[in-house]
Amino acid sequence: MNLYLNDPRRAALWEKHQARLQEALQAWHQRTYWYAYPEDPKAYGENAPSQGEAAFKAQLGRPFDRLRQPAERWLTSDEVSPYTREPLGIAYPQVSTAEALFRAQEALSQWRWVPYTERLGVLMESVERFSQHFFEVGHATMHTTGQAWMMAFQASGPHAADRAVEALAVAYQELSHIPPQARWVRDFGKVQAVVEKYFIPQPEGLSLHIGVSTFPVWNVLPGLYASLAVGSPVLMKPHPRAIYPIAIVVSLLQAVFEEYGLSPFIVQLLPDTSAEPITKQLAEHPLIRIIDYTGSTEFGEYIERLPGKITFLEKAGVNGVLIESVEDIEIVAKNLAFSASLYSGQMCTAPQNVYIPQEGVKTPQGNLSYEEVVAALTKAVEDLVSHPKAAPAILGALQHDTVAERIASLASSAPTVRRSPHPYTHPQYATARTLTPILAESPIPDEAFTKVEHFGPRLLFIAVESARRGLEILYQLAREKGMLSCAIYTTDPEFKLQATRLLSEAAVPLSFNFRGQVFINQSVAFSDFHGTGGNPAGNASFTDVSFIVKRFRWIGIRDCQQG
Amino acid sequence: MNLYLNDPRRAALWEKHQARLQEALQAWHQRTYWYAYPEDPKAYGENAPSQGEAAFKAQLGRPFDRLRQPAERWLTSDEVSPYTREPLGIAYPQVSTAEALFRAQEALSQWRWVPYTERLGVLMESVERFSQHFFEVGHATMHTTGQAWMMAFQASGPHAADRAVEALAVAYQELSHIPPQARWVRDFGKVQAVVEKYFIPQPEGLSLHIGVSTFPVWNVLPGLYASLAVGSPVLMKPHPRAIYPIAIVVSLLQAVFEEYGLSPFIVQLLPDTSAEPITKQLAEHPLIRIIDYTGSTEFGEYIERLPGKITFLEKAGVNGVLIESVEDIEIVAKNLAFSASLYSGQMCTAPQNVYIPQEGVKTPQGNLSYEEVVAALTKAVEDLVSHPKAAPAILGALQHDTVAERIASLASSAPTVRRSPHPYTHPQYATARTLTPILAESPIPDEAFTKVEHFGPRLLFIAVESARRGLEILYQLAREKGMLSCAIYTTDPEFKLQATRLLSEAAVPLSFNFRGQVFINQSVAFSDFHGTGGNPAGNASFTDVSFIVKRFRWIGIRDCQQG
Repeated sequence: MNLYLNDPRRAALWEKHQARLQEALQAWHQRTYWYAYPEDPKAYGENAPSQGEAAFKAQLGRPFDRLRQPAERWLTSDEVSPYTREPLGIAYPQVSTAEALFRAQEALSQWRWVPYTERLGVLMESVERFSQHFFEVGHATMHTTGQAWMMAFQASGPHAADRAVEALAVAYQELSHIPPQARWVRDFGKVQAVVEKYFIPQPEGLSLHIGVSTFPVWNVLPGLYASLAVGSPVLMKPHPRAIYPIAIVVSLLQAVFEEYGLSPFIVQLLPDTSAEPITKQLAEHPLIRIIDYTGSTEFGEYIERLPGKITFLEKAGVNGVLIESVEDIEIVAKNLAFSASLYSGQMCTAPQNVYIPQEGVKTPQGNLSYEEVVAALTKAVEDLVSHPKAAPAILGALQHDTVAERIASLASSAPTVRRSPHPYTHPQYATARTLTPILAESPIPDEAFTKVEHFGPRLLFIAVESARRGLEILYQLAREKGMLSCAIYTTDPEFKLQATRLLSEAAVPLSFNFRGQVFINQSVAFSDFHGTGGNPAGNASFTDVSFIVKRFRWIGIRDCQQG
Repeated sequence: MNLYLNDPRRAALWEKHQARLQEALQAWHQRTYWYAYPEDPKAYGENAPSQGEAAFKAQLGRPFDRLRQPAERWLTSDEVSPYTREPLGIAYPQVSTAEALFRAQEALSQWRWVPYTERLGVLMESVERFSQHFFEVGHATMHTTGQAWMMAFQASGPHAADRAVEALAVAYQELSHIPPQARWVRDFGKVQAVVEKYFIPQPEGLSLHIGVSTFPVWNVLPGLYASLAVGSPVLMKPHPRAIYPIAIVVSLLQAVFEEYGLSPFIVQLLPDTSAEPITKQLAEHPLIRIIDYTGSTEFGEYIERLPGKITFLEKAGVNGVLIESVEDIEIVAKNLAFSASLYSGQMCTAPQNVYIPQEGVKTPQGNLSYEEVVAALTKAVEDLVSHPKAAPAILGALQHDTVAERIASLASSAPTVRRSPHPYTHPQYATARTLTPILAESPIPDEAFTKVEHFGPRLLFIAVESARRGLEILYQLAREKGMLSCAIYTTDPEFKLQATRLLSEAAVPLSFNFRGQVFINQSVAFSDFHGTGGNPAGNASFTDVSFIVKRFRWIGIRDCQQG
């Protein structure tokens, strides 16, 4: 019984990409340094940078006409460059959500019956094509999110592509470890029973993906590719202020689908505007069974409460840092200043609450006082943000005015502000929306403002009685508010062990003694899980097995040949 | 950094059982005929039957004093034998739920840090010990559930033990495929970054297991062992009318835990009575994070709606049968009569709605009319239930009076009753609560009574216009009400293909042409998934990967050695 829609051209794509996917899966198992796509822009050829920039410039002010989907009307987006402050002026095709759901449902009846090997072949091919557009996607990301160029290129390009390959690799493992068919034979003595069994992976239904304005590609690709891999068509609803980068990805997927005899509606872009949002009507529709979401805790909790949905959520957390003992406070301060300044703190993994023991921080040269530690951190941030080259390359720009407003509000609620935020001058873009970090202080650890995420450029210095008390506070904060990263500095093996045990129980991803070129903000595909899914900051992790298997079911079919 | 509570004696248990668990995992992957424990009672030695019976008899009318847990008071259970109609008179130790939760939380802080290999070793040892008590558990099951002896022995003994081993095997796979530690090294040219990474599996929290009266062991062991394997202590809340069988399992687990230096409170028995139920106060407690449940749809939906819980539910469904074409109607009728009569239809996989096309059922000798098919099925049931040896061996007894009441209510609502249910005489137990199946008919397929599960001895014959229409009705029924089994009889390969495609999309586990010694009621460990988890009959499946991985999270710890 052949249930599937086989196609020799798609099967050839599987032949082409299978070895690479196996290699990726092996890397996922070993968790050492590996990548599918190099992060060095030079790796993509001499012409790629200029071609990418030209494509970006040619797109500005014009309809995005690369999608293989109809337009009932063309919607001019809310996208405004945080650097030039000018609207991108790009229009995207829009159809009613009813029409989009109808087409997605039609695509589901095809895509679910494409053998998973062919699905993976087609999807790997799409990632490969995507890699030829990293530069355009980089510019599109820079001018929607405010990320600095190098981060925009790497996060939305090779790093996102690696997370896509990772999701496909884990899907490959999960779809392949149950055989499509098995012959069950049992000898009853006089008679023999023979049952032919089929094991059919079937998606839970349609997927909705709700994008975020700060990481419109990196936070999307894992869930997008995970759903597609298991046979679930995706309705891609980007953030209204960051459509362009993911529109490129969707257009490439649609082109590959069509080229290989498949419905382009296996993935559809559903743009909207802040004035006329469509997310809730999509999320609440009974045909939507799977929802991926990155964004605010408030909206995330609304998604979580929708009955009958399978959700993969990344919400807000309050990330903590604890400094118990150090080899060299300057090295630590430099590393933390970088982490706090990177993309002006607009990363879900950026540090916020730095707990500093009043009993002092141990060093080989004796204890450092709370004030000395705060001074070192302050100096490191000042050095970084006043450096004319480092500041623009690291801080980038604020995605939206609300970020600056939030930081201003923090400034008015914090007991002490050691350093007020101020715009820095961007050498290329005089109009860029920039802001240096606020450094605020709290003499006690349980001030209300320390229990809220102040998404943006900020660091809070919080005095705690002792390092041990700091650990307990981190535990409680993680349990109540969630954390997507947590840094601890300690040279004491016993303290490290205690911290690991305690914070593991609160499902905190923990980083010890990060310095030099490694930063707590970054999680690398094939080695780090992004988040744990076990604390209030999110219920999902890139890319563990749960992230894949919750999207599909095994259907067992038994065909009795002899009774 | 050694985070774990290592113990050489527990490590030795892992050495002892590891090969067997690997063999089980291989069987799970191959899905051919395999078992860990033979279902033939003779395999357990000459003395096992009499010892088991003696243990059962000695327990009646006495406190169950084998548990390693304190008693604030002794609770005499609601358990009454469906055969003798006499109370078992067994008292179980009871503590407050607050006390039990406190002890479980303490046990969690130990159990979560026992290396998973040692956990698996200890748990495999407990299954091995359990196999020495299959006979007592069989008697306990027979006299709480009403199952006939052989089913009680097999379902609560070897079949349940196999499902436990299966859960442990999948847990082994999921816990072992991420390394506990990996060294990540990246060359930055001038500097080299070195990060030691730890990957720590941590349970979501405490588990609550809510048992069912009809399969107090078989439906419990998969979830019980899955939670224990990932480090989550379990509060075992049996059905008030079927405590004794699972109390034996809990006592054996507690004994092994204690023997190997662990808290016996890693699993606790929490008995209650129908008059003073404790399930809701347990389920709603914030410390309970994972809930396994088998039972009514109504209570299942209550569990499903509790915020912040991870649930594994088996609720009610309406199982369908469709007869499109047959080689020999008598063989088909005999098989279905057995499936409907087995344990008096008190199986979640028992057939209920038999759809028979009015256009006739094709056979090599020409079409059979609707009436001829109904006549053949009726005769097969009558032959079986009037057979003095077959009836008691197959039908067993009704678990509770409510089953007979439900069937009486069906008799009053069905348009036509072809055969009224009546008690049959049990040769050993004159007082047994017995009932033969009701055979009811509906001339049209959308009568309200065909859309409800009538848990008990019943078959509904439902006329449908055509076999094709029957398929559509099955699809709709599965989507709306759920199915745990579905049988289709067809000799037409094209119809088989269409049925498989359509019903797979509704996540229905489908059985074609079951006859002879294979019955749709039965799912075998290592080869069949029990349920799909994808339709309203349940959100979980024994034992797919989801059944394990939703219970724990990977916590990534990164220790920077060089930056």
